[in-house]
Amino acid sequence: MSLVAENVQQKVSLMHNFNAGPSILPKTVCEQASKAILNYNDTGLSILEIGHRTKDFQAIMDEARALVKELMNLDNDHEVLFLHGGASTQFMQVPMNLLNEKETAAYADTGVWSIKAIKEAKLFGNPDVVCSSKDSNYNFIPKDFAVPNDAKYFHITTNNTIYGTQWQKVPDVSMPIIADMSSDIFSLQRNFNSYGLIFAGAQKNMGCAGVNLVVVNKNILGKVKRAIPTIMDYRNHIKEGSMLNTPPVFAVYVSMLTLQWLKQEGGINTIEKINNAKAELLYNAIDNSHLFKGTVVKEDRSKMNVCFVMEDSSLEKAFLEFADQHGIYGIKGHRSVGGFRASLYNALPLSSVEYLASLMKEFESNN
Amino acid sequence: MSLVAENVQQKVSLMHNFNAGPSILPKTVCEQASKAILNYNDTGLSILEIGHRTKDFQAIMDEARALVKELMNLDNDHEVLFLHGGASTQFMQVPMNLLNEKETAAYADTGVWSIKAIKEAKLFGNPDVVCSSKDSNYNFIPKDFAVPNDAKYFHITTNNTIYGTQWQKVPDVSMPIIADMSSDIFSLQRNFNSYGLIFAGAQKNMGCAGVNLVVVNKNILGKVKRAIPTIMDYRNHIKEGSMLNTPPVFAVYVSMLTLQWLKQEGGINTIEKINNAKAELLYNAIDNSHLFKGTVVKEDRSKMNVCFVMEDSSLEKAFLEFADQHGIYGIKGHRSVGGFRASLYNALPLSSVEYLASLMKEFESNN
Repeated sequence: MSLVAENVQQKVSLMHNFNAGPSILPKTVCEQASKAILNYNDTGLSILEIGHRTKDFQAIMDEARALVKELMNLDNDHEVLFLHGGASTQFMQVPMNLLNEKETAAYADTGVWSIKAIKEAKLFGNPDVVCSSKDSNYNFIPKDFAVPNDAKYFHITTNNTIYGTQWQKVPDVSMPIIADMSSDIFSLQRNFNSYGLIFAGAQKNMGCAGVNLVVVNKNILGKVKRAIPTIMDYRNHIKEGSMLNTPPVFAVYVSMLTLQWLKQEGGINTIEKINNAKAELLYNAIDNSHLFKGTVVKEDRSKMNVCFVMEDSSLEKAFLEFADQHGIYGIKGHRSVGGFRASLYNALPLSSVEYLASLMKEFESNN
Repeated sequence: MSLVAENVQQKVSLMHNFNAGPSILPKTVCEQASKAILNYNDTGLSILEIGHRTKDFQAIMDEARALVKELMNLDNDHEVLFLHGGASTQFMQVPMNLLNEKETAAYADTGVWSIKAIKEAKLFGNPDVVCSSKDSNYNFIPKDFAVPNDAKYFHITTNNTIYGTQWQKVPDVSMPIIADMSSDIFSLQRNFNSYGLIFAGAQKNMGCAGVNLVVVNKNILGKVKRAIPTIMDYRNHIKEGSMLNTPPVFAVYVSMLTLQWLKQEGGINTIEKINNAKAELLYNAIDNSHLFKGTVVKEDRSKMNVCFVMEDSSLEKAFLEFADQHGIYGIKGHRSVGGFRASLYNALPLSSVEYLASLMKEFESNN
């Protein structure tokens, strides 16, 4: 029996989730979360029903923050916060906290998420777009550009979910780097202590939708003149240990579970090796195919979101249906690129990528 | 065997959750949520893993919004949004959207949450505190006061969780009323269409922490001159059907389940009668006791949060321990008031209130 037929037999018990986000979580995380909703830690209460000022939840928040520090190997200047909202809130919150009215901040334009960040920065200061790959539909990461020395910070989107590009090497600049790591956080090693501020919605590599991780070097704060609303000022969240108001309790809990899982798997170094193997496997399958082709300049290919199309685009619908019938979830490409996008986040097993590659091969031999 | 002894026998399977928030949820809601985390709607995927732009999640968001409209009997001017963050975000977002720099907005000061709202309004315009019960530690709702006609809106906190007071009758004013209903939403009938904007963190009567309900009369929007950050402008959320960015998927789902439960129970009119019975039972137990006494002026007593102390405060620790040993969770009073606070949210069964009252009687006869 072929891999494909086997999978059909097992149906939903073997869904392969390649969705771009919200996305696959480790099975053990879902199992623990499901149990905690009925009875958390033998309290007789649901995790959804316990007070956030209890020892039970304080322990969850403390562990989640400590795991981020440990896994990213953060120094004492870097504070870890779990905040309400997603990256879209950070697009506003970053310039509100870091940019005075007439000051300049440098932004790299690598797609939709960068553009959204630039739009919000205009409300607070002068964003200077120092590079862009817009003219080629963002299929590469710009390399030859200069960041003016008077820029207060330099903002990048480390991984561009929609286009499947990723900064392999972050430029060396004199000012703090602000990085939107929503779609590649915890997937590969970076020198996290060299960043001024990192933010990431949790729903890719570190939990479910509804919470935002912020890692901030506290030394860059407190330098703007404007009055910042209480809930938007990072310093207030630091002071209150990320408990300024009722946190999104369950989403923080799921992040803690996901980070525990990552630690048990061996941490970032180990997962990076697995992620490299997954990406290599799929890109090889694409490059060795006559039907499929990648959309991104090879050196800038993302290891998280693999974007590809078909040489004969009229076949794309048939392949989508074929994949769908065989338990593949979420590989339709974003409308800005078309074709397919296979997201290979941390929790996606290598076996799912092998399976997708085998389906591609099977489809190719049938067509 | 006494009620107390019986309960001890059954231990955690019968925890009585009187916590002020996050707080008790209907058992069926927890059961459905727990199941959906393993396999949502037979998709083979966890509710935490499905994309927010899928038919599956769109149906959840649509139903959650429709249930709010139906249960509150809202007209077509009132839009329903599920937003990131809690009420603390709304303290800023309301004046940002509704108050120009030199304009005045009226605020009623009925405690900590009002004060927080007033603080944020100062960043955007001139909050005018038209009444306050601060001098008596907020143990009543102010009645004799005037709201100046030039105020753009009048802000109240309908229920004051910490002090156990509640607006029984909302004043008739000429400008839009903005109501923080975080702790009594869906617990009693009000003329919801008469409000300009209602907001409520979900974690009391409508779900788990991590999502905020906003009901806004769209006609009051679009009148301020300032540029509003994209994610903070209610109009953008209305335009995008409450899906401007990745919503807190799971928290919205739990809200939908909780609203489904409320509808099945008979809606707001029915739950209000049950809530009245619960409150009457507990206040009677307090008023008929020689050991316990209420802290709030009778006519302003909250039906959601019952605050009480002991005539002999040296006994309070003993009663807390006694209650704790007998499966009562979360009745320690807030430090601003001391003593006890029993929160009687929608999901708390009458039997839990009967049980608490019986414990109070048993403690009284032992002391």
